[in-house]
Amino acid sequence: MTGGRGEGGALLTPAPGESPIVVLVRPQMAANIGTAARAMANGGLFHLRIVAPRDGWPQPNAYAAASGADAIIDAAQVFPDIASAVADCHRVFGTCPRPRHVIIPMRDARAAAEDLREINGRDLRVAVLFGPERAGLEADDLAHCDTLVRYPLNPQHTSLNLAQAVMILAYEWWMQAEKTPPRDFQMNETRPATKGELENFLTRLVDELDASGFLHNAPKRPGMVRNLRHWFERGEVTAQELRTLHGVVTELAKGRMRRGRFQDNDPPPWQETETP
Amino acid sequence: MTGGRGEGGALLTPAPGESPIVVLVRPQMAANIGTAARAMANGGLFHLRIVAPRDGWPQPNAYAAASGADAIIDAAQVFPDIASAVADCHRVFGTCPRPRHVIIPMRDARAAAEDLREINGRDLRVAVLFGPERAGLEADDLAHCDTLVRYPLNPQHTSLNLAQAVMILAYEWWMQAEKTPPRDFQMNETRPATKGELENFLTRLVDELDASGFLHNAPKRPGMVRNLRHWFERGEVTAQELRTLHGVVTELAKGRMRRGRFQDNDPPPWQETETP
Repeated sequence: MTGGRGEGGALLTPAPGESPIVVLVRPQMAANIGTAARAMANGGLFHLRIVAPRDGWPQPNAYAAASGADAIIDAAQVFPDIASAVADCHRVFGTCPRPRHVIIPMRDARAAAEDLREINGRDLRVAVLFGPERAGLEADDLAHCDTLVRYPLNPQHTSLNLAQAVMILAYEWWMQAEKTPPRDFQMNETRPATKGELENFLTRLVDELDASGFLHNAPKRPGMVRNLRHWFERGEVTAQELRTLHGVVTELAKGRMRRGRFQDNDPPPWQETETP
Repeated sequence: MTGGRGEGGALLTPAPGESPIVVLVRPQMAANIGTAARAMANGGLFHLRIVAPRDGWPQPNAYAAASGADAIIDAAQVFPDIASAVADCHRVFGTCPRPRHVIIPMRDARAAAEDLREINGRDLRVAVLFGPERAGLEADDLAHCDTLVRYPLNPQHTSLNLAQAVMILAYEWWMQAEKTPPRDFQMNETRPATKGELENFLTRLVDELDASGFLHNAPKRPGMVRNLRHWFERGEVTAQELRTLHGVVTELAKGRMRRGRFQDNDPPPWQETETP
């Protein structure tokens, strides 16, 4: 079921705050998906999403390795990309075996489990991304995350099996569950935006910046877009704030349209304003 | 290399206090041995012993699954039974997925890792037993343990993959290693007996009890021997205390020899002394 929104798919979406969603990004081996599902069951995690599995879906080997966690495999949702897999989530964590030079808050697995419990207790929907077996999450994958999860392990041997990475997080989640009663549901005036709402805004922003010429440097464009994404993923932008930001973009776009299209050999207008 | 004492085997014995020894008891799948070795490397555990692997040893599949932890597989020692595998150890922990009615101190994985670190810091050699994939350690296996390790996990799904069980313990070990500096080496007047020294005593005690007729009830004999073993495994009997206990057995045996062999239809002499 590609897309996860097909027949019955919507019914499988967990209620916000129910328990974190495990997202396996481009997993290679069906057996690892099954072992990961088993580890999820061990730790009381039940919502599995799979982004672009290498060998398609469903896979008999996943069931063979799940060892009784069939219900998790049955209910797994498949998506073509990370953006669609986390569109209904308010927070996205990404597991990161190697330290990277990214400007995203980093937690170790234990602290991350505390955060997950806290987010869960606020009745928000949170996902945790796990990268493919060979190399883990890539820079563009991490740009979808607002928090990174580090595993404190032997620096001489950091290569962690996919299912083992899921196991440690599921174990820490359960340790938190044993320790911490879920917090009271806090109904605030506003709520954090979902990643889908944020994605809509980012898409619109990038379109406008392309139109304005701000992103006209083709070789640097991917990194610039990723940096913008990092900035907006951080913190918990609220739905209210996003509406304001949409208004800002609309106003700026109007100004550009009044001034006419930006010329390719001029410095970009936003860069101008930063120079004193 | 069956027995682990063959050519070069002795050299592979870790120095006391170096790091805990992982003992896989009757493992079934070579791939699980490899994945367990990889998990050990992740958590900074390097000493692997294997008791009676189902498919013999060495196994190419173990290397394939070890993913770079080859050195651990290379150095693994194979033993025919638990007693020989832990003979040089001062303490033995056993992982126990299901609660059992046994009179052995129980720790969760996190507290067990603290204990392991503490034991390690006293320069003692400690082993952790992991049972076979299908059913875990049996009652007779647990009778070799002085401490049980419980994994706090979803009670609806406690079936833990062997390598996952090793991973959680290795992870908790590493978390302790990051947190706790090893304690100072404490040289006391005496030292805990090794499990081999204790085994010698238990063998002798059981022989004498057989000779005395105390264990003459054949159907109950295995359980009685196991209970005796549980009693002596608990605490850390010291080498000095064991020498005293040997003396006690010698004295009692002398008395029996003076009185002549115990008759099968009489109550056993020790039972007599317990009745007021």
